[in-house]
Amino acid sequence: MRRFVTGALAEPPYPARVNERAGAVGQRSAEWAMELGLVSTSDAAQRLDRANAGDLAGRACPDAGPEQLALLTDLITWLFSFDDSCDDDGLGADPGRLAPVVARLLQVLERLGGPVPAELLDATGPTGTALHDLCRRVRDQHRPVLLLRFTRQVREYLLALLWEAANRKHHRVPGISEYVQYRRHTGAVYPSFTLTDIGHGAEPDAPRLADPRLSELEALAADLVCWCNDVFSYDKERRLETDGHNLVLTIAREAGQDEYAALAEAVRRFNTALAAYDRLETAVLAEGDPDVTRFAAARRCWIRGTYDWSLGASRYQ
Amino acid sequence: MRRFVTGALAEPPYPARVNERAGAVGQRSAEWAMELGLVSTSDAAQRLDRANAGDLAGRACPDAGPEQLALLTDLITWLFSFDDSCDDDGLGADPGRLAPVVARLLQVLERLGGPVPAELLDATGPTGTALHDLCRRVRDQHRPVLLLRFTRQVREYLLALLWEAANRKHHRVPGISEYVQYRRHTGAVYPSFTLTDIGHGAEPDAPRLADPRLSELEALAADLVCWCNDVFSYDKERRLETDGHNLVLTIAREAGQDEYAALAEAVRRFNTALAAYDRLETAVLAEGDPDVTRFAAARRCWIRGTYDWSLGASRYQ
Repeated sequence: MRRFVTGALAEPPYPARVNERAGAVGQRSAEWAMELGLVSTSDAAQRLDRANAGDLAGRACPDAGPEQLALLTDLITWLFSFDDSCDDDGLGADPGRLAPVVARLLQVLERLGGPVPAELLDATGPTGTALHDLCRRVRDQHRPVLLLRFTRQVREYLLALLWEAANRKHHRVPGISEYVQYRRHTGAVYPSFTLTDIGHGAEPDAPRLADPRLSELEALAADLVCWCNDVFSYDKERRLETDGHNLVLTIAREAGQDEYAALAEAVRRFNTALAAYDRLETAVLAEGDPDVTRFAAARRCWIRGTYDWSLGASRYQ
Repeated sequence: MRRFVTGALAEPPYPARVNERAGAVGQRSAEWAMELGLVSTSDAAQRLDRANAGDLAGRACPDAGPEQLALLTDLITWLFSFDDSCDDDGLGADPGRLAPVVARLLQVLERLGGPVPAELLDATGPTGTALHDLCRRVRDQHRPVLLLRFTRQVREYLLALLWEAANRKHHRVPGISEYVQYRRHTGAVYPSFTLTDIGHGAEPDAPRLADPRLSELEALAADLVCWCNDVFSYDKERRLETDGHNLVLTIAREAGQDEYAALAEAVRRFNTALAAYDRLETAVLAEGDPDVTRFAAARRCWIRGTYDWSLGASRYQ
């Protein structure tokens, strides 16, 4: 299947570049995770190492300085580690257990990277401490628009995880369009984009962000990142029989297709969305606004970077 | 119990004022709901009439012009009507049915009040059409910061409803601190505040909104509005045995108290939070920033207005 995916998936027509600091920053991120206690077993450390957060962040931010690259890398490390902890002991399939965990993380987010009571961090454990560390460092960038956007997007990600958990508990496979909508949030792509904007120096103002075309561009980019993950990880997820949160599975179920036909359809959807992204990006960039150009560049790098990282990552093999 | 609440709950020390247009705008809002099909039975129309959205919005925005008052009134009408439709046929207690409904509304929000494909509005029905109408009118205010904030807050509200639905399905009563955190979102207070900011001409910029004290002020105001609702509606909810989403019930359950003791504890929490709000507001206003003053005025009006509206509303009797 992997060979089919590699052959059929359209290659994003953007240059493949990696930040020269990706390796070193990735290594430092693994240490950050160990120091904060996000990773406490050698098995977990190896899993995180294979996920290669440094490579993914380095492709998303090819020109970022070390501090900004580290911020995105650590966010991705945090997301991978939280994702693993949700998988490991069934937390991510039990909304009744996940909800209080999420509630405490929402409390951390409300502090906006400012001082946090020690008892809150004690209650949240390493996951909350590390999330606060990320917020604090975003705050230190002195770009309050991005801080506010980042914390809201992480909140949406956390709330959407409860949707996923409820589905898992009931072995429910969502319909395609429902899945597509929530996947944009459960993939945590939006907060990742926002930290990438810091690395690209992109900060479109509110009038530009309120342009529905930019909102559509953002959603298309998020879909491409998530679906690329889905088609590459489908093989592994199928073997592990984890759950129905994969575009291929939702298509197979809703369209009554066998898995090869569903995979082909998922690839077709990716290719169509990539063409749509490219067309819309061309239209938006034609206006020559440098802030919008940087905003689009950050999303392009994510689309291309996810593709290359997925080809290379052993996480999904 | 109602008499106990009325006697024990601290009266918010802010002037009680109502917009002189509240009655007329409330009447027009009921027509808006009928025209769009939000309300389709005389029973539903009567329920909406008793809820008196016009009075609540008129207290939140005592000085707003008709267009801006209508915007907040219609949002409250929309929220009441969506709340009722979630209650009526069990939608709000079934995450598997609620999730696709929410997904389509999230799609509407992504359009940011810009053009929406007719087939999306067909799929969402009156609820989506009315939500789009609200977004379009917020867009027409030409305050993109508030449009972006509003759509994100409605998104958080919708996602949090899935938490509530999962709890209901499993007859789960959340713990107190978990409840407090999600209640801020399920009460839809934040998007209501944002439309109230329009009516008060309050638009603090990002550096001010990123001040953790303003975030705390906002959370305290949201708690006060929600808990005031909870203590006044407890009697009715207890009779209807709806579910565990009331501060009084979460306290009774977690602290093992009988309902009178739990109600007294809920009232005590309200009074403590009101004092905390007042202290923090004084500190924040001391800096003399006119935008922050308007921001706080909008929240004060909500705190005072909810108290007075609750005293008068027959919705909870």
